[in-house]
Amino acid sequence: MQNRVDGILVENLIDLYYLTGLDLSLGRLVLKKRGSKLFVDGRYWEMCRNKSCIPVEKREEFGPWVRGIKKLLYDSQTTTVDQLHKLEELFPKKMVALPGLVKRQRAVKDPEEIVKMEKSARLAWRGFQHIRKLLSVGVKEKDLALEFELFCLKRGAQEMAFEPIIAFGENSAMPHYRAGSRKLQKGDLVLIDVGVVVDHYASDMTEMVEFGTIDPRVKHMKRVVEQAFQAAVAVCRPGVKVKEVDLAARKVMRRAKMEELFVHSLGHGVGLETHEFPLIRYNGPDHDEPLKEGMVLAIEPGLYLPKVGGVRHEETIVITAQGSRCLKI
Amino acid sequence: MQNRVDGILVENLIDLYYLTGLDLSLGRLVLKKRGSKLFVDGRYWEMCRNKSCIPVEKREEFGPWVRGIKKLLYDSQTTTVDQLHKLEELFPKKMVALPGLVKRQRAVKDPEEIVKMEKSARLAWRGFQHIRKLLSVGVKEKDLALEFELFCLKRGAQEMAFEPIIAFGENSAMPHYRAGSRKLQKGDLVLIDVGVVVDHYASDMTEMVEFGTIDPRVKHMKRVVEQAFQAAVAVCRPGVKVKEVDLAARKVMRRAKMEELFVHSLGHGVGLETHEFPLIRYNGPDHDEPLKEGMVLAIEPGLYLPKVGGVRHEETIVITAQGSRCLKI
Repeated sequence: MQNRVDGILVENLIDLYYLTGLDLSLGRLVLKKRGSKLFVDGRYWEMCRNKSCIPVEKREEFGPWVRGIKKLLYDSQTTTVDQLHKLEELFPKKMVALPGLVKRQRAVKDPEEIVKMEKSARLAWRGFQHIRKLLSVGVKEKDLALEFELFCLKRGAQEMAFEPIIAFGENSAMPHYRAGSRKLQKGDLVLIDVGVVVDHYASDMTEMVEFGTIDPRVKHMKRVVEQAFQAAVAVCRPGVKVKEVDLAARKVMRRAKMEELFVHSLGHGVGLETHEFPLIRYNGPDHDEPLKEGMVLAIEPGLYLPKVGGVRHEETIVITAQGSRCLKI
Repeated sequence: MQNRVDGILVENLIDLYYLTGLDLSLGRLVLKKRGSKLFVDGRYWEMCRNKSCIPVEKREEFGPWVRGIKKLLYDSQTTTVDQLHKLEELFPKKMVALPGLVKRQRAVKDPEEIVKMEKSARLAWRGFQHIRKLLSVGVKEKDLALEFELFCLKRGAQEMAFEPIIAFGENSAMPHYRAGSRKLQKGDLVLIDVGVVVDHYASDMTEMVEFGTIDPRVKHMKRVVEQAFQAAVAVCRPGVKVKEVDLAARKVMRRAKMEELFVHSLGHGVGLETHEFPLIRYNGPDHDEPLKEGMVLAIEPGLYLPKVGGVRHEETIVITAQGSRCLKI
């Protein structure tokens, strides 16, 4: 905490969950060295009084209570312009911007969080194995998406981390395709990008399945993606910078003269959100951030040939003292 | 559009879907009287070129293209402080705040949207009827929540509008409870608050079921809630202000000396989001907004007696020329 700053305001709902363990749709947490307080409205009063480990006050008490604070840090990455204007009207010259207040702390998972993330990764993996068995001529992308959802919900998924992406053949060339009415044909490459939420923690994985003999160009792309994936994971360990991970994968693609077919970032942090800090991209906002033990990252190199097909391989890994390990095994 | 403003920037993802029909996780739309443009990154390039009815450009082209614009309106309710700072650095003295840029337009649904919202409301209603049949001694709240999800997903729900709230007995006193391990007992009042998403449109409904003979205090609250609901719906028609709807319900509660047990807003707009403009609350930010034909609103009076039980009745209605009608029937 900076000098002369005597309070930190947290309003982002996921940060609030992270810090309090409470599911709120509106709330204000003020962290102070002594005497933090959580402010909630009537809807959450009863629940928070029972469950909160931080003293709870009614929302109306926020204004009077904050008046005693000299400088109040807020997160300029999650606070909207209008929210800030309202706070500045109430507390002139008091608000101090700190971008990404909680995200660095959230990026490093403690052992309890890792256990939840393993559960999440393993359930998505089981769901993938389940729908892989259902691949047959004529099955639709959206049938598999639904089967994945039903399988995982019955086995403890709280919800999907995102709508399952199931893409057959040429549809796989669109990185953010969902799942449609396309029927499976012999010779299709199948892209399955899925994730679930277990105990609030997301998973994210992408597997490719060859259904018959696929286009040789795509087959070649698949080998390059696999090598790029291995190269990226091989450099992951504490202290290595985010950009180095992306560049390791890009080096493989460049050697294969395919870098221009890689149209997205190499990956992202995973946790309470499917996409969170850091963004793994050599020229992105977090490129100079060092990896830390306990960070959980989705590594997902991909190559996309418009109208023909795309390939992506994605695993969620945790950074360990020596390197990294895959969460789903 | 104000004088001297020659472009409107839209970055909010739901607004982008509303205006383009495209599911993006990042994108910038600039609306101009002539020559609107959609800017997307590599992940969406292929999909948008195939599907967008607005000309698509690569994200890198945004800066050069915007330089020709004198004033650019942005939505200060959805733009973060850091996003605005970046825009202001790129385009000094160009950014003009307009709070809630698209939300007023989104609040009024066209006939095509109403059809989707009816489908959504009817599916949630069928899901409710399905799980009502499963009420029996010993069944757990979370069993019913899962059954609702499976039933609706199999019948075309894209996802849940929110995690089902199933609360037995004393748990119903917490308005935003989810569903836990509490088992159903004779004499419990059962609160079921559910919604699904169909074709991107959400539904939201709450029903109460008496399982055996319930506590007479709660039974009385149930009658008052029902009267408050009827009173609120009775005043709904174009031109009536939002606050009048809330006040109509509150009048009934006040007469029954129960207003202090009503700890949340009377309702909210529903559409692409489960909770959207306007907030129906006599002292809320939208209290002076007039209802308009085509607005879709969730009306949900509730009364909550801590540790004993709570009651809520919620229907999603559409404002018609003469008054309103319930979407689920």
